[in-house]
Amino acid sequence: MSAAPFTMTRRILFHETDLAGVVHFSNYFRIMEEVEHAWWRSLGRTVHAADAAGALSWPRVSVTCDYTAPLRFEDEVELTLAVESVGEKSLAVKVEFKLAGRMVATGAMRSVCCRVESGKFTAVIIPAEVRERLLACK
Amino acid sequence: MSAAPFTMTRRILFHETDLAGVVHFSNYFRIMEEVEHAWWRSLGRTVHAADAAGALSWPRVSVTCDYTAPLRFEDEVELTLAVESVGEKSLAVKVEFKLAGRMVATGAMRSVCCRVESGKFTAVIIPAEVRERLLACK
Amino acid sequence: MSAAPFTMTRRILFHETDLAGVVHFSNYFRIMEEVEHAWWRSLGRTVHAADAAGALSWPRVSVTCDYTAPLRFEDEVELTLAVESVGEKSLAVKVEFKLAGRMVATGAMRSVCCRVESGKFTAVIIPAEVRERLLACK
Amino acid sequence: MSAAPFTMTRRILFHETDLAGVVHFSNYFRIMEEVEHAWWRSLGRTVHAADAAGALSWPRVSVTCDYTAPLRFEDEVELTLAVESVGEKSLAVKVEFKLAGRMVATGAMRSVCCRVESGKFTAVIIPAEVRERLLACK
Repeated sequence: MSAAPFTMTRRILFHETDLAGVVHFSNYFRIMEEVEHAWWRSLGRTVHAADAAGALSWPRVSVTCDYTAPLRFEDEVELTLAVESVGEKSLAVKVEFKLAGRMVATGAMRSVCCRVESGKFTAVIIPAEVRERLLACK
Repeated sequence: MSAAPFTMTRRILFHETDLAGVVHFSNYFRIMEEVEHAWWRSLGRTVHAADAAGALSWPRVSVTCDYTAPLRFEDEVELTLAVESVGEKSLAVKVEFKLAGRMVATGAMRSVCCRVESGKFTAVIIPAEVRERLLACK
Repeated sequence: MSAAPFTMTRRILFHETDLAGVVHFSNYFRIMEEVEHAWWRSLGRTVHAADAAGALSWPRVSVTCDYTAPLRFEDEVELTLAVESVGEKSLAVKVEFKLAGRMVATGAMRSVCCRVESGKFTAVIIPAEVRERLLACK
Repeated sequence: MSAAPFTMTRRILFHETDLAGVVHFSNYFRIMEEVEHAWWRSLGRTVHAADAAGALSWPRVSVTCDYTAPLRFEDEVELTLAVESVGEKSLAVKVEFKLAGRMVATGAMRSVCCRVESGKFTAVIIPAEVRERLLACK
């Protein structure tokens, strides 16, 4: 059984464009993250959570984006997030960007579950209750 | 024979960090582009050039970044750009991020040479004199 | 008679924060613009419109922001835009930022109506139908 | 006696432009901060310092910018920072943007010296040795 992917719509902002008249390629990663964090909230959670043992953070270890058509000011992008894998310490998601039903970009992000202490990140095993929640989305 | 790679140093800015105290992963792509454009200038050119036939632009078709250690405010990052390939219509570069000689991230960007007319991008063969200049960097 | 001010709610994104754990001060201007552009759309218009005579643009001539309390990741900010003045060629708006009903920042932006031709901006009298629409919001 | 103002030159980046072909107005504040932080370093300090009593931070309380001419990709902006006032707990600076000797924008930022504890900002009297250093720049 597979959970339905998470979807949202997002309008392109003026400052996200560049002099070529289209969304700057770096901003796709910010939009991907926006979708990912909205998905965390849809699970009743937040990406930047604290539990008894301190703060959990999910730094990126590897990200990619492929672009097939540009996005422009005020475009309403349809965004779909799917969980690719849930490892012992890592999470991989894929985000699709569509415009009027047509794919314009596809991104992927792999993150590692970390404890942050005095600014130092240490990879840790994903807490059981978080992991269970993530796996239910696969 | 291979040309020396292009290098520069760049200090991390305050607004590039996020609440985790480190550079936001999306900003690595902006820094990569900054290096790439400085490299174009080192070739006596600009990435956003116009010739008799109109404006040339190099939209990204595929980008990646792998992160191994964080960057922090005021870090002086050592950046190295190497040309990976020069296709008929495309250019692929790789950018390494080092801190005190230690690799902290590696990125790659593939772009396509395009004419822009009325906001529409059309892939074109890289003009001969540009291509020659790029190949000399391989 | 005065029109109701335009309001919207907006959640703070992760990349909008900085290492101090709060929204970077520059991002308030991006949020102000986001509200302003949503307000333009609520008038059935877009800020970046084209008519028979070419493209209209509204570059900023003066902006300010006063900050009284910080905003943090995932805060839901209540935003209110009010039209301050509609000049012959200019528009001034004010944007209030509230969190749980408490004012946390106040910004203002003055823009000038311009034609853009070959990248050159020339201030022009606001087209009559646009001006009428703006005045109805005062 | 008055200290010489702090100056630096900075090239406009591609991602700082928007679809109007010029630098987005919000980015002037990021550039102002970049100048301010470079000035702190020129004083042998960092804006985000820690002393025996903990971390000092300088959140903005009021900022403004006036724009008279646009900035474009690869422009080399001449930036000048002058200290406007050093209060008991606050610092006000002014930054001028020039292009080929011509003023294109003027900004101002007022910040308050704060201790940060558990994410809470408390205004404090500027430490004596910092205040002395700042006053020498007036």
